[in-house]
Amino acid sequence: MKSAAAESAAVSESSDIYSMACPSRRALELVAGKWALLIFPALDAGPMRNSALLRKIEGISQKMLTQTLKELERNGLVLRRDLQTVPPHVEYQLSPLGLSLSKTLVALDQWTQLHHADLELARQRFDQPEKVVGSIVHRLN
Amino acid sequence: MKSAAAESAAVSESSDIYSMACPSRRALELVAGKWALLIFPALDAGPMRNSALLRKIEGISQKMLTQTLKELERNGLVLRRDLQTVPPHVEYQLSPLGLSLSKTLVALDQWTQLHHADLELARQRFDQPEKVVGSIVHRLN
Repeated sequence: MKSAAAESAAVSESSDIYSMACPSRRALELVAGKWALLIFPALDAGPMRNSALLRKIEGISQKMLTQTLKELERNGLVLRRDLQTVPPHVEYQLSPLGLSLSKTLVALDQWTQLHHADLELARQRFDQPEKVVGSIVHRLN
Repeated sequence: MKSAAAESAAVSESSDIYSMACPSRRALELVAGKWALLIFPALDAGPMRNSALLRKIEGISQKMLTQTLKELERNGLVLRRDLQTVPPHVEYQLSPLGLSLSKTLVALDQWTQLHHADLELARQRFDQPEKVVGSIVHRLN
């Protein structure tokens, strides 16, 4: 394992996420894609079959799930394991590279689950500031 | 501050990111948007003016930057500070809520900067397995 300082140095030498030409920008778009952000945390708990992922991640179509899993497999983040049984049993799991990322994506999901109400309140304040103040005054009286 | 266990319990009681109806899903799409993922880490270093953000984040248009900053401000993640000077000087900075998220997004950016070459190599292997094996054999001889 590299130290945090060594990793930081490696980052600054090798790539710049703010540069359009840097391949890290493409990598960011892949791992922070709408469905990847939900597939990673789902697989973080352990291997899953296609059908189980389809049930867990509401709103994803079979086509999008297949496409996203294939792209994550192609990029070395997910492993596809065919148990060679009849009927067929195929499982997906995170590769060591995928596992090195999933902790961060789980943290991102947890942040949104903890704070979505704060965002909602801020939106109400921004859109109708007088209404929120009115409701506080009402509660105080 | 809540403990990690208390936060975890709060998450499981209040929301389910895998549910389409859960507002945390909308929050996730906002904070993991293409440009938000670059604006957060940029502002994590300190307040910045619109023009500095435009220079730093290659490829973003003035229109997208303005829209994204406005939406982040509306959701309570970014603070807009008008210094009331002539000529006008407006700065953007992360709110305490935005700061509570930026560490995770900085970690995500750093991961992609460290690992984009691993993804590229995996893609080459997946797309042309025989070519990569050939190149390894060639190097061994």
